[in-house]
Amino acid sequence: MTAVSRRNVPIRRATGQVLRDDTDRVAVEEPLEIRVGFEGDDRPPESLVVTMRTPGHDPELARGFLFTEGLIGSAADLLALRPGPPDAGGDNVIEVELRAGLQERFRHLRRDFLTNSSCGICGKASLEALRARATLAVRGDELRVPTRLLLELPAALLARQPTFAATGGLHAAALFDAAGTILDVREDVGRHNALDKLIGAALAADRLPLWNTGILVSGRSSFEIIEKARMAGCPMVVAVGAPSSLAIEAAWESDITLVGFLREGRFNVYSVPARIADAGA
Amino acid sequence: MTAVSRRNVPIRRATGQVLRDDTDRVAVEEPLEIRVGFEGDDRPPESLVVTMRTPGHDPELARGFLFTEGLIGSAADLLALRPGPPDAGGDNVIEVELRAGLQERFRHLRRDFLTNSSCGICGKASLEALRARATLAVRGDELRVPTRLLLELPAALLARQPTFAATGGLHAAALFDAAGTILDVREDVGRHNALDKLIGAALAADRLPLWNTGILVSGRSSFEIIEKARMAGCPMVVAVGAPSSLAIEAAWESDITLVGFLREGRFNVYSVPARIADAGA
Repeated sequence: MTAVSRRNVPIRRATGQVLRDDTDRVAVEEPLEIRVGFEGDDRPPESLVVTMRTPGHDPELARGFLFTEGLIGSAADLLALRPGPPDAGGDNVIEVELRAGLQERFRHLRRDFLTNSSCGICGKASLEALRARATLAVRGDELRVPTRLLLELPAALLARQPTFAATGGLHAAALFDAAGTILDVREDVGRHNALDKLIGAALAADRLPLWNTGILVSGRSSFEIIEKARMAGCPMVVAVGAPSSLAIEAAWESDITLVGFLREGRFNVYSVPARIADAGA
Repeated sequence: MTAVSRRNVPIRRATGQVLRDDTDRVAVEEPLEIRVGFEGDDRPPESLVVTMRTPGHDPELARGFLFTEGLIGSAADLLALRPGPPDAGGDNVIEVELRAGLQERFRHLRRDFLTNSSCGICGKASLEALRARATLAVRGDELRVPTRLLLELPAALLARQPTFAATGGLHAAALFDAAGTILDVREDVGRHNALDKLIGAALAADRLPLWNTGILVSGRSSFEIIEKARMAGCPMVVAVGAPSSLAIEAAWESDITLVGFLREGRFNVYSVPARIADAGA
């Protein structure tokens, strides 16, 4: 079954003060539940998370979420991944089987989720705990992106965003290299989900850590976006929107180059500017 | 102490391909922990949530969060609200004391948080559980907003967003009436937080339910935004950005008029259009 990421709905459309009946294409948002079981353990999988997401690339979302939350450290930790039973959620449930030995980490993560968030750092008991989780180092010694290539990224991203183009309702996250080539793109109603899908795809393709590669996000950069990039070892985050103060602090701490407001021929570099090459350089 | 919602940071600013050193004003993002204790219970308050928020209006954020999550049903359920001890988080902690008898609801909410979300419907075990929580009915029988007034709302909101104007980095949520007057505005890096602050302020001022009043949000409308409006009894949500499919479904179910893409002299009505008055009406 193909996942449905957009849907036509009947609307009243106002142009100036004139209203008329019409249809509009909207981005689909549905809950996805991730259930976790373990190798050699016969008990039914336990629920880890329910996230509102745009259907599509769900296995990648699950992989990326498990990885950026620190539950799995590599593709080898994930033994199986399948849709839930048709009578219990079906396509809106993903069941994963993890390597024996990760049960303790799972308990810990579930306990962390008790200290939860309405948006942002969901379920982290403390920033310190978060910082202690990363298994990959950030490395960008050889990454140097000329300003000209950065300025061309938003148009390149838009050309690769089919559902956004149709609905205007999705966040995107993309991978790009030092030549300014967009390597991969994922979309979702949630910007964290778009990034988790992107990182999950890289994990499945054995492309982690994301050294000397940049992540481009269509929205703002929050603390959580920087933390997810850091978990993947990525040294550069480029956002079309504004950064938050904590995103900037986290970027400096993790040696990540953070760019914001990349639009209309301009951008700002908020941290580690050495990786952005001047026109004269 | 005054909460700091924006901060100057050193940046490299690119205009076209020319880079120069400069400063930029960014929206502050810091964690706020809400701890909950109970009347006549001597145990120390327990952590309910850590949310990344923009400092400012923190008591309203806590009130609004407790209300929209269904832990308190009225201002009378909240007996006291104070900053945390200076040696344990200080301004980034809010301790609340709730009416005796709400312990069971607290346990239930904490248990729900085990089934958590990376963004969106944080901690709800199921949509059904969520729908069962509302204590106020939505009512908008007398609300009828002319298209002309709707079209003027974005400019009115922008005029009331001091930190957004300075940083470009904040979401806003505002209350407006049928005359198109902006009654109140709150800003935050998180759009859910901005709405929680707005609803928390209304709760503190004994202005709930928000019958015959509209909520204006600066970003997109997700399922969670509609649910928070519903908890407050509000019959109209107007968004500058796109709605998700589930936001539309939830709006129809709750008899909420949902408007999207309100910008540049246009908008779309996604649900319950009868409350939007045509120019000829």
